[in-house]
Amino acid sequence: DFECALEEVHPAFGVSEEELEEVTQNGMIPYAPIVQDLLDRGHLFVKQVSTSTRTPLVSVLLHGPPGSGKTVLAATIAQTSAYPFIKLISPDRMVGFSEAQKIQAISKTFADSYKSPLSVIVVDNLERLLDWTSIGPRFSNSVLQTLLVLIARKPPKGRRLLVIATTSLRPLLTELGLADAFDTEMRVPPISNLAALEAVLRDVQLFPDEEGLRGLLGWLADAGFARTEEGEEGAQVKMQVGIKKLLSLVEMARQEPDSAGVRLMNGLMGLQ
Amino acid sequence: DFECALEEVHPAFGVSEEELEEVTQNGMIPYAPIVQDLLDRGHLFVKQVSTSTRTPLVSVLLHGPPGSGKTVLAATIAQTSAYPFIKLISPDRMVGFSEAQKIQAISKTFADSYKSPLSVIVVDNLERLLDWTSIGPRFSNSVLQTLLVLIARKPPKGRRLLVIATTSLRPLLTELGLADAFDTEMRVPPISNLAALEAVLRDVQLFPDEEGLRGLLGWLADAGFARTEEGEEGAQVKMQVGIKKLLSLVEMARQEPDSAGVRLMNGLMGLQ
Amino acid sequence: DFECALEEVHPAFGVSEEELEEVTQNGMIPYAPIVQDLLDRGHLFVKQVSTSTRTPLVSVLLHGPPGSGKTVLAATIAQTSAYPFIKLISPDRMVGFSEAQKIQAISKTFADSYKSPLSVIVVDNLERLLDWTSIGPRFSNSVLQTLLVLIARKPPKGRRLLVIATTSLRPLLTELGLADAFDTEMRVPPISNLAALEAVLRDVQLFPDEEGLRGLLGWLADAGFARTEEGEEGAQVKMQVGIKKLLSLVEMARQEPDSAGVRLMNGLMGLQ
Amino acid sequence: DFECALEEVHPAFGVSEEELEEVTQNGMIPYAPIVQDLLDRGHLFVKQVSTSTRTPLVSVLLHGPPGSGKTVLAATIAQTSAYPFIKLISPDRMVGFSEAQKIQAISKTFADSYKSPLSVIVVDNLERLLDWTSIGPRFSNSVLQTLLVLIARKPPKGRRLLVIATTSLRPLLTELGLADAFDTEMRVPPISNLAALEAVLRDVQLFPDEEGLRGLLGWLADAGFARTEEGEEGAQVKMQVGIKKLLSLVEMARQEPDSAGVRLMNGLMGLQ
Amino acid sequence: DFECALEEVHPAFGVSEEELEEVTQNGMIPYAPIVQDLLDRGHLFVKQVSTSTRTPLVSVLLHGPPGSGKTVLAATIAQTSAYPFIKLISPDRMVGFSEAQKIQAISKTFADSYKSPLSVIVVDNLERLLDWTSIGPRFSNSVLQTLLVLIARKPPKGRRLLVIATTSLRPLLTELGLADAFDTEMRVPPISNLAALEAVLRDVQLFPDEEGLRGLLGWLADAGFARTEEGEEGAQVKMQVGIKKLLSLVEMARQEPDSAGVRLMNGLMGLQ
Amino acid sequence: DFECALEEVHPAFGVSEEELEEVTQNGMIPYAPIVQDLLDRGHLFVKQVSTSTRTPLVSVLLHGPPGSGKTVLAATIAQTSAYPFIKLISPDRMVGFSEAQKIQAISKTFADSYKSPLSVIVVDNLERLLDWTSIGPRFSNSVLQTLLVLIARKPPKGRRLLVIATTSLRPLLTELGLADAFDTEMRVPPISNLAALEAVLRDVQLFPDEEGLRGLLGWLADAGFARTEEGEEGAQVKMQVGIKKLLSLVEMARQEPDSAGVRLMNGLMGLQ
Ligand SMILES: Nc1ncnc2c1ncn2[C@@H]1O[C@H](COP(=O)(O)OP(=O)(O)OP(=O)(O)O)[C@@H](O)[C@H]1O
Ligand SMILES: Nc1ncnc2c1ncn2[C@@H]1O[C@H](COP(=O)(O)OP(=O)(O)OP(=O)(O)O)[C@@H](O)[C@H]1O
Ligand SMILES: Nc1ncnc2c1ncn2[C@@H]1O[C@H](COP(=O)(O)OP(=O)(O)OP(=O)(O)O)[C@@H](O)[C@H]1O
Ligand SMILES: Nc1ncnc2c1ncn2[C@@H]1O[C@H](COP(=O)(O)OP(=O)(O)OP(=O)(O)O)[C@@H](O)[C@H]1O
Ligand SMILES: Nc1ncnc2c1ncn2[C@@H]1O[C@H](COP(=O)(O)OP(=O)(O)OP(=O)(O)O)[C@@H](O)[C@H]1O
Ligand SMILES: Nc1ncnc2c1ncn2[C@@H]1O[C@H](COP(=O)(O)OP(=O)(O)OP(=O)(O)O)[C@@H](O)[C@H]1O
Ligand SMILES: [Mg+2]
Ligand SMILES: [Mg+2]
Ligand SMILES: [Mg+2]
Ligand SMILES: [Mg+2]
Ligand SMILES: [Mg+2]
Ligand SMILES: [Mg+2]
Repeated sequence: DFECALEEVHPAFGVSEEELEEVTQNGMIPYAPIVQDLLDRGHLFVKQVSTSTRTPLVSVLLHGPPGSGKTVLAATIAQTSAYPFIKLISPDRMVGFSEAQKIQAISKTFADSYKSPLSVIVVDNLERLLDWTSIGPRFSNSVLQTLLVLIARKPPKGRRLLVIATTSLRPLLTELGLADAFDTEMRVPPISNLAALEAVLRDVQLFPDEEGLRGLLGWLADAGFARTEEGEEGAQVKMQVGIKKLLSLVEMARQEPDSAGVRLMNGLMGLQ
Repeated sequence: DFECALEEVHPAFGVSEEELEEVTQNGMIPYAPIVQDLLDRGHLFVKQVSTSTRTPLVSVLLHGPPGSGKTVLAATIAQTSAYPFIKLISPDRMVGFSEAQKIQAISKTFADSYKSPLSVIVVDNLERLLDWTSIGPRFSNSVLQTLLVLIARKPPKGRRLLVIATTSLRPLLTELGLADAFDTEMRVPPISNLAALEAVLRDVQLFPDEEGLRGLLGWLADAGFARTEEGEEGAQVKMQVGIKKLLSLVEMARQEPDSAGVRLMNGLMGLQ
Repeated sequence: DFECALEEVHPAFGVSEEELEEVTQNGMIPYAPIVQDLLDRGHLFVKQVSTSTRTPLVSVLLHGPPGSGKTVLAATIAQTSAYPFIKLISPDRMVGFSEAQKIQAISKTFADSYKSPLSVIVVDNLERLLDWTSIGPRFSNSVLQTLLVLIARKPPKGRRLLVIATTSLRPLLTELGLADAFDTEMRVPPISNLAALEAVLRDVQLFPDEEGLRGLLGWLADAGFARTEEGEEGAQVKMQVGIKKLLSLVEMARQEPDSAGVRLMNGLMGLQ
Repeated sequence: DFECALEEVHPAFGVSEEELEEVTQNGMIPYAPIVQDLLDRGHLFVKQVSTSTRTPLVSVLLHGPPGSGKTVLAATIAQTSAYPFIKLISPDRMVGFSEAQKIQAISKTFADSYKSPLSVIVVDNLERLLDWTSIGPRFSNSVLQTLLVLIARKPPKGRRLLVIATTSLRPLLTELGLADAFDTEMRVPPISNLAALEAVLRDVQLFPDEEGLRGLLGWLADAGFARTEEGEEGAQVKMQVGIKKLLSLVEMARQEPDSAGVRLMNGLMGLQ
Repeated sequence: DFECALEEVHPAFGVSEEELEEVTQNGMIPYAPIVQDLLDRGHLFVKQVSTSTRTPLVSVLLHGPPGSGKTVLAATIAQTSAYPFIKLISPDRMVGFSEAQKIQAISKTFADSYKSPLSVIVVDNLERLLDWTSIGPRFSNSVLQTLLVLIARKPPKGRRLLVIATTSLRPLLTELGLADAFDTEMRVPPISNLAALEAVLRDVQLFPDEEGLRGLLGWLADAGFARTEEGEEGAQVKMQVGIKKLLSLVEMARQEPDSAGVRLMNGLMGLQ
Repeated sequence: DFECALEEVHPAFGVSEEELEEVTQNGMIPYAPIVQDLLDRGHLFVKQVSTSTRTPLVSVLLHGPPGSGKTVLAATIAQTSAYPFIKLISPDRMVGFSEAQKIQAISKTFADSYKSPLSVIVVDNLERLLDWTSIGPRFSNSVLQTLLVLIARKPPKGRRLLVIATTSLRPLLTELGLADAFDTEMRVPPISNLAALEAVLRDVQLFPDEEGLRGLLGWLADAGFARTEEGEEGAQVKMQVGIKKLLSLVEMARQEPDSAGVRLMNGLMGLQ
């Protein structure tokens, strides 16, 4: 209960603007067509829930490698839904919670959503909510059972709910039977081609001149990054990086302007 | 106990009409002869319990793949029994319950039924009641032991009880010794032939014209759906889908009327 | 403790007539010589306890396949003992009990028996008392340890006790060291020959005429049931059924008088 | 704590005559020289503790197959020690105890013994005190740790203590490191030769005439019992039985005087 | 809570000078260029956090063999940051804490840091914080989950945080997914060449004359220590020792001045 | 807490003379040069702690087979240190303690020692403190974690501490990472040569005349005991015995003066 005191009290109903903004504050760089595609598909689910009378519940699983932008994508779709009830269920807000406290927090959010005609709930980072660790393996079965029921349980008559969950461990969710509880899935890919890399590097303005950028891209092509989007579907993806890690490496490189390109290159190499 | 507050209080005796209606509200599409067959067999058990003096307890296990319609079938049989006591035991009503609370809720329902001359209890989704997960594996042994006793325990003199339970994991129940506790079983199959698919698609009116429907059925035949009911018993069932999933895919496809057929086709392919 | 409220309060001493009658109310059909044999051997133990001064404690383990009639046999022997203290320890009366509550209930029954000069305790369904499940495996070690001591502990000076326990899992009890705690054992066999089947079918009067009975027996002979009692000891027991299951199948078949024989046949085939 | 109420209150100090007499009331039949040998060796330890100034603690482990007479032997040695403090620690007195209650009871007995100049403690049936079961395996590690310390811990200055413990599972105790905690061991063998069998059968007077006894012994020789004591050390011990089981079989056989020999023979055969 | 009483109370905010000084009081011997390198890289992170607006959180993992100087290095970087909030989270301060108490202490430190514009937290000895032991293996999953979240959770708007953690078991952290939670890593190597050894031995003045030092270095070269820094990257590192162990061996050797060289040599040999 | 009442209350500070004397009361027989060697090395650590300013903490692990004299050796070194704070942490004083109580007792002793300028703590029988058993295996991880920290944690400024711990299971401690927490180790060997055996037998005066002693030594040489100390390092140590067991066997043999030599011989043979 000490943790409760640490967390700010926030109203149980309505839209948690602050929480969502904290997540989306750095925005999304449109580094590739897939970015807009994912947003569009998300908005279609928003529309379906609010218009179709036969699907009072739609649940979507966003999966992809660490740092590929799942959380920002989910939060952005939720934020732009204009639903009266928008909430984020996140392990970041549950540090030190017991299993029972987690379950209470999760099911309270769902119970609250049932009081709004239209609701969207983002359930972020399922593996962390489950306290998953591969040694053992260990995880909270009671949180799992709660999610298995809540993600598939229809809201009461007259209520409609969109659930968007994220995970970096889809194979685990399949094994746990949790992936099957969702109506549909969307894959959020990492960056694996030079075009996307270039778009990001231009956006963040790491290099003062075109030359530095060109040089780095040349090295990266040699290092194994595919030239175009097709690379991802190609025979063998040699190199890839999540947008989150990429932005972190950019900031570290920026500390030493003279050798920024080399630093970034080394950082990317170190990931493989 | 927080959960208790979230759930509505409901009278301990009599028929839980609301709960049952929530489950059966979308009705059953008579997409194949098996649907009526299953209902008929269910009604025979209803008759047996109310007439035979030597079988005060009859227990039936409905099993079949996820979304094949088990819950609706069980609830419909119960609803139409006209018994004075009809109850649904469901994991949906037990989110956040401790093992002890689950056991209390389950055994209270049975104890209540013993006060009515004729009762039917639907025990929905046994694997979820057991908190089953295959990793470990983990499950609630105390809930299992409770069910093992309650499902086979004769009601007191002068009382008669029909138990209808559902599961998607019959092999698990066999391993746990729970399948053996039932007097008899009924299999609820998925949809695996074009005739049934067509019946559903006509019922939901996804396509405005005959042409769209014909086109889709043609693709599906190519994709491996059997032409007739026999397909199910055939050498190799290539394609199948539960009615629940099928209806969900139909609603998603409906969002994009121009490409509804393609969307539905893709959704069905994605399941295999 | 909720469960305590559900169960009726019953006096701690004396004979639990109601409980025993509930078990034995359907009586025993003398379908084969073994039935009387088992009763006779049981009565001999009753006599030994009440007459021999050197064996203040005799413990007997009844084992046999599910539904072979173990519980009824144990209860009948106890009922006809005419001892002043006769009690049934049964999982049916312990739904929702914690391990500690089970142990308290079991050891209280033994402690009560020590106050009577002559007592018989039926300990029904040992594997269920132990909360046994083969997945894990899991069971209550504290209940096991309690039984290991109580079944072998001599009553105080001047007191005599007969313990009759039942199980469908004798190999398990051997592995747990519990089988060794008993002074002796009796096997309760299933029905595996036509003579016994015929005796049962005549007793329950499923067929209005001799013809129907003859027809069914003919099919069953073809299906693999041995002609005589010897079958059981024969090279290969092909078909068998517990009396409990047989009577349940008879009642289901009775619902459709016109095809009763076929139904029963199918039911018996489904067990193999 | 319910169990506490069931057990009689008994003074913490002095000799527990009643408990010991309950164990030894049937006496020991001197069926072979080994019986006296074991008693003599036990008395030597009693003497050593009371006379040697350098060994304030002597601990002895009695081991042998089930029913070979370990408990009676230990109790008899203790009873005849004439020490002012003689106590029996037995699982029979701890039904329903929690681990903590067991440890409290055990260590209280040792603490009490430290207040007497000369004490003997019988620790009966170590595997049961440990709640041992081979499935798992499971046992109480906290009871084990308590015994590991108490059995090897010297009493305070001026106090002397003899510990006699019994077990049927010496290999287990070795694996647990508990066998090594004892100063010495004595093996209590089962009966495996005709001479000892004959001595017992004469003592209990099962047969009214010499002929019956002779006949049975003839059969038993054929069945594989060795003729003399040497048999035990012989190449292959074919048949053996604990004195406890033998006496139980004798009483059962006595119920049917006409066929007592056959019954006893069958009982002995059933053990192999 | 007894432990709470044993530990001194210290203010929740500001810099824990005493704690840090206790760790760094023996200073760092500049025995090789790598020592300054590591300090420089650390200071760069300090600078990044205080200047870059896009990285409010930077987390660094220091790893290396036991006693290589990780704790001192982390504490030194923190101490010289001149940030208003500098804290040490260390198992040394959590003896006897329950898992819940550990989690409370850890998350309180992070929550406190969020109140300062610039903070640095040293999380020392991650494997000990996790209660890791390889037998089992066992560890605190709830502490792990807490760290997984806290090390990656961005501080609130306007707050910046540098996290420096240490471990001797980097492969374990990788397996637990904890290594991936860090933005970057630094390896703290052991001493494995004669140049570094000589620098240390001169600094501690174990030998009164040059001769003793020379002799020892000669032996050590023969024993397998590399001559120069390159040795570490060489084909096969034969000998190595952490600075902490080396200083401990020096002090033991100092007890017997006449044979100090031999003692130290033997101590170093004993490590291999 | 019952145990607390059983143990005598003793002052938290200063020297626990009574406890130490209880351990060392039988003294040490100087049966071989190694005995004095070990004492000398121990005293050197005592000197180092009190004189060296750079090693406020020295921790020593005494290991050797059961009964080789580790506890007496550790207690003797502590007793003769003349430090103002000398304490024994022993499982003998913690019977019935919970894990939390053990940890409290252990860490209180260390906390107390930090109040004295010079302290020595004997931590006896580490495997028992850890509740170790090889079946499982099971042990107290929380006690282990406490020891891992306390044995390596420097005392506060101006305080100095010598820790001497004992174990019969050094390989276990290595596996648990506990052996590495010590600064140094000393091996306490068993008796494995005739010279040492003779020294002990003369000291305890088992034989009234030289002849008996000579005879026994002759037998023992034949049985495989090495003639001289070298034997221990020899190709194959055939026979060995701890001094503790040897003294126990001597006392048993003394009970039967006429056959003392044979008895002792048999006892020694029984160990192999
Ligand atoms: N097109 C983009 N899509 C997603 N994120 C982007 C994009 N462009 C920039 N970003 C930034 O990249 C970061 C993505 O981080 P985010 O936490 O969403 O990733 P994640 O996949 O949820 O990571 P994790 O696997 O650690 O949960 C954010 O800081 C976001 O502002
Ligand atoms: N003939 C039918 N039989 C069953 N359900 C039908 C039928 N026709 C339409 N439905 C609809 O299909 C859905 C079946 O879902 P239901 O929950 O009963 O399936 P289920 O097998 O219990 O699923 P789960 O395995 O997830 O528990 C319901 O919405 C029901 O209204
Ligand atoms: N000869 C008979 N022996 C035993 N039971 C008989 C006999 N004839 C009829 N019955 C009936 O058969 C049923 C036997 O059921 P019972 O519960 O005793 O079997 P069980 O072996 O204990 O089953 P389970 O393995 O499920 O515990 C009872 O209803 C009893 O009335
Ligand atoms: N010579 C004998 N030695 C031991 N017991 C004897 C002897 N003669 C007769 N008995 C009787 O045999 C029985 C031995 O039982 P006891 O409980 O001592 O065996 P046990 O080895 O402890 O059995 P368990 O392995 O079940 O603990 C007692 O009833 C005792 O009176
Ligand atoms: N160049 C140096 N770098 C680090 N430590 C040094 C250096 N020179 C001397 N030291 C001393 O060496 C010791 C290093 O110990 P420290 O506790 O930092 O090592 P560690 O790697 O954290 O050990 P552990 O693996 O046990 O946690 C300290 O006493 C420190 O004062
Ligand atoms: N030279 C000696 N060294 C050690 N103990 C000796 C010596 N001579 C006699 N003894 C006696 O031998 C016994 C050694 O027992 P101690 O408990 O110290 O052994 P231990 O190795 O600690 O045993 P354990 O492995 O059971 O803990 C003591 O009673 C001690 O008085
Ligand atoms: Mg995320
Ligand atoms: Mg269902
Ligand atoms: Mg039964
Ligand atoms: Mg016994
Ligand atoms: Mg460190
Ligand atoms: Mg010792």
